[in-house]
Amino acid sequence: MDAAEAPPPPASSDAANRSSRRRLPEWRRCLSAVGRFAEEKVGRIAREDPRRVAHSFKVGLALTLVSVLYYVTPLFNGFGGSAMWAVLTVVIVMEFTVGATLSKGVNRALATLVASSLAIGAHKGASLIVSSENTESILLIVFIFFVASAATFSRFIPEIKARYDYGVGIFILTFSLVAVSSYRVEELMPLALQRTSTIFVGVAICLCTTVLVFPVWAGDDLHKLAASNLDKLADFLEGMETECFGENARSGNLEGKDFHDAYKSILSSKDKEDSLCTLAKWEPIHRKFGFRYPWSQYQNLGTLCRQCASTMEALASYVAILRKYQYPEANPQLYMKVQKTCSQMSLHSARTLRELSSAVRSMTTPSAMNKDLSAAMKYANGCRNELLQDSALLQLSDMVTQINEITESVNNLARLARFKNQEKARNDVVINVRNQ
Amino acid sequence: MDAAEAPPPPASSDAANRSSRRRLPEWRRCLSAVGRFAEEKVGRIAREDPRRVAHSFKVGLALTLVSVLYYVTPLFNGFGGSAMWAVLTVVIVMEFTVGATLSKGVNRALATLVASSLAIGAHKGASLIVSSENTESILLIVFIFFVASAATFSRFIPEIKARYDYGVGIFILTFSLVAVSSYRVEELMPLALQRTSTIFVGVAICLCTTVLVFPVWAGDDLHKLAASNLDKLADFLEGMETECFGENARSGNLEGKDFHDAYKSILSSKDKEDSLCTLAKWEPIHRKFGFRYPWSQYQNLGTLCRQCASTMEALASYVAILRKYQYPEANPQLYMKVQKTCSQMSLHSARTLRELSSAVRSMTTPSAMNKDLSAAMKYANGCRNELLQDSALLQLSDMVTQINEITESVNNLARLARFKNQEKARNDVVINVRNQ
Repeated sequence: MDAAEAPPPPASSDAANRSSRRRLPEWRRCLSAVGRFAEEKVGRIAREDPRRVAHSFKVGLALTLVSVLYYVTPLFNGFGGSAMWAVLTVVIVMEFTVGATLSKGVNRALATLVASSLAIGAHKGASLIVSSENTESILLIVFIFFVASAATFSRFIPEIKARYDYGVGIFILTFSLVAVSSYRVEELMPLALQRTSTIFVGVAICLCTTVLVFPVWAGDDLHKLAASNLDKLADFLEGMETECFGENARSGNLEGKDFHDAYKSILSSKDKEDSLCTLAKWEPIHRKFGFRYPWSQYQNLGTLCRQCASTMEALASYVAILRKYQYPEANPQLYMKVQKTCSQMSLHSARTLRELSSAVRSMTTPSAMNKDLSAAMKYANGCRNELLQDSALLQLSDMVTQINEITESVNNLARLARFKNQEKARNDVVINVRNQ
Repeated sequence: MDAAEAPPPPASSDAANRSSRRRLPEWRRCLSAVGRFAEEKVGRIAREDPRRVAHSFKVGLALTLVSVLYYVTPLFNGFGGSAMWAVLTVVIVMEFTVGATLSKGVNRALATLVASSLAIGAHKGASLIVSSENTESILLIVFIFFVASAATFSRFIPEIKARYDYGVGIFILTFSLVAVSSYRVEELMPLALQRTSTIFVGVAICLCTTVLVFPVWAGDDLHKLAASNLDKLADFLEGMETECFGENARSGNLEGKDFHDAYKSILSSKDKEDSLCTLAKWEPIHRKFGFRYPWSQYQNLGTLCRQCASTMEALASYVAILRKYQYPEANPQLYMKVQKTCSQMSLHSARTLRELSSAVRSMTTPSAMNKDLSAAMKYANGCRNELLQDSALLQLSDMVTQINEITESVNNLARLARFKNQEKARNDVVINVRNQ
């Protein structure tokens, strides 16, 4: 049906009449609205992280490479029907980060090797024990039942679930396939070899694509996550200072503010951090991340950041309750007295965190004596008596202790990962500038 | 090497000598230690949830059924090499719950249908447009590149990621495979039909096994999770009462107590709850869960429980800080005054939550007027002046408000899910008892 030939939609009112002035048929306008919505959504997702677009094209590229190999090389002619295993491998193994692709590829290759050897062994064993073909197939089915059950159960063991879940799946698949095929295929060995080699070709193509074309490193993401968590903690403290304790403290209302929502994302960052850390350990040396880089340190730092964020949550809920029951009006004197202390503690703590985050970002050792941290500690320690009158202050001073622990953790990371010395880094910059 | 023939291990000391009295060789003792450890671990995992063992055997059973079909029926003889697709489907589609298996099975079947149709269409289209075989294969490769890239990108859209991630993966796989095969296989249509029908056989076997043999329902788990979350909240309040506010209040130390760790698991229950809810919607009618059962209500209830747990966390961290700075000793009068109020609020709130959890468990409507909730509300409202002196009290009274919301949410659930009337349920029990 052409748009020009379509009857105009029945006009139910003047307004509808006006809006349909262009005489586009209903379904076309609907379609264009859906199109615009999808365009916006897709655009937003792509802009949020342009590496997603690159990854999509990388998957396309890897599949194209496999198909081209399939079309042109005599190699794949020899492989025959097994060539599809390379396609299957590429679709399953290609992941967003280098670490994930590498771990899946190795899992797949090893599981295939182990399972096919075991299945061929089972087949040979069965044919040695019994002579009749029927009895042999019954024996093989019993094998399949018990091996599949045991392997499935092993997936419930947390350590295996975390690291080898995918490998166990491939193991069950390959074992069943080879064991079942052994019944009909005369020459099992060449078939198993063919499949294994095509799978290796698929894994190799995935690894080349993922490392050589716009590589996405899990280690990079983990490093950036640590720095951004520190920034978010600093944001919250600065926001608290502005809204609640500062000289021009405004509403005292934290809900709906950007910094208030930001620290919540820290609380739920554990899973992402753990999986990035597992993947980062798989990745080869790249950029500034050398051999045996102390990735686990990021998990320690993350745990401390989450504890700090949880104290912040308690503090925020406390401030919200105070506001609800007009606490400042009820106790104006106490409120005035503690306001300055809180303001100073928040400001100095925020500056400490900012320095730490920029040290992590630039991979330089943070300065040994942090003046802001000492100032915050001084305020926290100096006014215990005042503190005892108000639990918000107690919580805030507890937070300063936690920030001290975070500082130590960043220092540890800097030492273990051999961050550059800050002085030296500055000199390097100066030399670079002079040389230009 | 036999154990009897093995030389005794070199005794480095008397102690070592005594321990190796039985003259077991080193590697055997090592092996038996590993065995005992594995046995304990496996035993614990199996006891924690015996359905895991059942699931493992179910996977074994489904694979055995596929293999038997492969061995005995002339049906599979006709399918030839495609029979392996049934094995592959079973390994991939079998999941722990009925809902997950059903959703994966439908995803797999639909994605295969759509992708093979599209690939065959692309093949036909390409052969219509160009005449040379080489040009056609180039055209097909270009198709694969763009379709795979677009489909991979769609996986980054959260809505698609949550529901159809697996389906999109299968779509890419099937499209590439059929498009690539089209180059070498003469008769594409029969091949595609064969594969699709074997996949349907695989999905059917999975569904039969998962529904007929010890079915595990995601809906059941979601329902039990809701009840146990309510119980954990009650546990915390009772624990608080015993440790901090009660007449024989002991240590005031909450760390390391069972109830203190329990509420933390509520905070991290969101992902599990969401995924169970998505899967429960896939499941057919079973037991007391009828058609269009209001599963989303469990998510509302869960959100309220998490808010309440988060207030509890704030309260617990507050109590910990008070303890750290010996607040009770510093302000004995205030502490005494608020202790009774806190104790009563905690006790009545805990009883309210217990009643709600038992109502959810037995699927009966909770009583319309909850005396304990009214008592807790009375304490919370009656002492605003005292409350203003201490923020712990403020937080506790805030929690009473939240428990009121939880009560409303459970009532909503009872109405929408048509829970039995409590009076009627009791009468039923009486009648049952009399009939026995």
